[in-house]
Amino acid sequence: MNVVAVVGNPKPASRTRAAAELVAERLTGTPPTTVIELAELGPALLEAGDPAVAAAKRSVIDADLVVFASPTYKATYTGLLKLFLEQFAAGELHGTTAVALMLGAAPQHALAGELTLKPVLSEIGCSCPTPALFLLESAWDAGPDLDAWVERARDVLRIEPRDGW
Amino acid sequence: MNVVAVVGNPKPASRTRAAAELVAERLTGTPPTTVIELAELGPALLEAGDPAVAAAKRSVIDADLVVFASPTYKATYTGLLKLFLEQFAAGELHGTTAVALMLGAAPQHALAGELTLKPVLSEIGCSCPTPALFLLESAWDAGPDLDAWVERARDVLRIEPRDGW
Amino acid sequence: MNVVAVVGNPKPASRTRAAAELVAERLTGTPPTTVIELAELGPALLEAGDPAVAAAKRSVIDADLVVFASPTYKATYTGLLKLFLEQFAAGELHGTTAVALMLGAAPQHALAGELTLKPVLSEIGCSCPTPALFLLESAWDAGPDLDAWVERARDVLRIEPRDGW
Amino acid sequence: MNVVAVVGNPKPASRTRAAAELVAERLTGTPPTTVIELAELGPALLEAGDPAVAAAKRSVIDADLVVFASPTYKATYTGLLKLFLEQFAAGELHGTTAVALMLGAAPQHALAGELTLKPVLSEIGCSCPTPALFLLESAWDAGPDLDAWVERARDVLRIEPRDGW
Repeated sequence: MNVVAVVGNPKPASRTRAAAELVAERLTGTPPTTVIELAELGPALLEAGDPAVAAAKRSVIDADLVVFASPTYKATYTGLLKLFLEQFAAGELHGTTAVALMLGAAPQHALAGELTLKPVLSEIGCSCPTPALFLLESAWDAGPDLDAWVERARDVLRIEPRDGW
Repeated sequence: MNVVAVVGNPKPASRTRAAAELVAERLTGTPPTTVIELAELGPALLEAGDPAVAAAKRSVIDADLVVFASPTYKATYTGLLKLFLEQFAAGELHGTTAVALMLGAAPQHALAGELTLKPVLSEIGCSCPTPALFLLESAWDAGPDLDAWVERARDVLRIEPRDGW
Repeated sequence: MNVVAVVGNPKPASRTRAAAELVAERLTGTPPTTVIELAELGPALLEAGDPAVAAAKRSVIDADLVVFASPTYKATYTGLLKLFLEQFAAGELHGTTAVALMLGAAPQHALAGELTLKPVLSEIGCSCPTPALFLLESAWDAGPDLDAWVERARDVLRIEPRDGW
Repeated sequence: MNVVAVVGNPKPASRTRAAAELVAERLTGTPPTTVIELAELGPALLEAGDPAVAAAKRSVIDADLVVFASPTYKATYTGLLKLFLEQFAAGELHGTTAVALMLGAAPQHALAGELTLKPVLSEIGCSCPTPALFLLESAWDAGPDLDAWVERARDVLRIEPRDGW
């Protein structure tokens, strides 16, 4: 299973990245095939025809499952992530299953993934069959929210549990 | 395949109903198993413990696929539909696949299904893997929007085409 | 100043009502002129031409400021409140200033007022110059959230503080 | 009256800019005091401490009225605009009145301003008393939508008509 994590945090090596990797691994039993750190693309996302952006885009198109991960900035996903999503034509990701993952400093923004990130993913063609996942930055790698979500999401995505899970 | 259409139009025998039936049939090759006309439940939705409401709720829980259909009132789904959705606990419809269908008088409200109806369906546990479908009231049963959506939705829902489709 | 509180809780005498009254009083220095308990209108909201509904609608049209208050059901405002909002034509409340107030059991739904209730109020013509206010049911009448919001909202609404506030 | 237009189109000298200038002029009778072309800031928005970004931010803080304008990309405002909005702390623009303006190729995305842009402006503290304005790219400078919106918005913003309007 070709799983890609897209990390929309302007700072590299973020908890957003770690959480995206964890979610991919918890869902499928293995780490993501590819991690796209949008922080590394940076200004190239504002230009046309950058080869690194094209390669990142290709990875997403070829994926079976994409975890789109973002910190919560101003009650929604980051502008950096949006710049990347704008690389895709409307409907271009038809056939790609996606998960919306957001991290936030406080629970008050927990609805942001469902109400703001999933609609954009849908617009570019992704299928988002699971609820968006919101994790507190202070407890992103633990807690009942993650466990409960993983169990339900695996069921919806029809991913079989593996030994050890 | 047990398919249920939930019709949130306050007037019975509406185009909303006809469109919900058409969408179910276009998706699966057969009419919906059950059509729930919320207009017939009416005030019972404001009470606790009404047996007709309980039966409608049971039909939805038992369905493999539910088409939730609503006209667009004030740029979103109807209060009547919301009263019915409130009968379900958060997450209660886990395991149910749902389609959000809205009809509107003008294209200006086309985003309402994606931005307002799908999040509520997700909250009660439904999986909504397809984009919301918005149909103009004046052309609900024809037009390229419906055809293109059906083709993509069948693909996402992994429903095999039948003879004659 | 003619201030109306519209209470969208299906149960009368709710904390939603108490919070709406408190917000009106904190904003203006006096209790609301009129409180509309939608729970008392109930099934009449599903009919056309009910005189009690017409009177409630008239009160809202005549108000200078309306506090629309709802508990959070399924991550958004109630169907009961939506039934009342559907009584108004698009833009009919032009000239009316409105405040969106939601109460919820947990902070996870704090964005619901801003993302779901304010857009409907805008559709029927209300001007919503303040942020939506979300109050925890367990602490609706106290806490820094309310105080901070009141101070800012009075400033935005250009309401002068009175003695005692 | 100090009016600033913030233009979130990645291409400079866009119809988005022209529309933002027109809206400012139609509202107040004079062109905007300052136009901020985010396309000119570009990659600087991805860095910390850029002086041109700081100057743009200062212009917005000092404004009486800000027109935030964006083309519709993937059914919502641009990532470029979001990068700029992220420069402000939550609530930092308290006291600033803002207008949300979006241009789109087709009417299907007309709700994007109300449902996606206004909530972000509210998060950073702006007061958005008017409905969002959506203009078709093909008719941005004419048509009844603009005229009707201007008339209502001036009323809500309490701007007196001048001779010639």
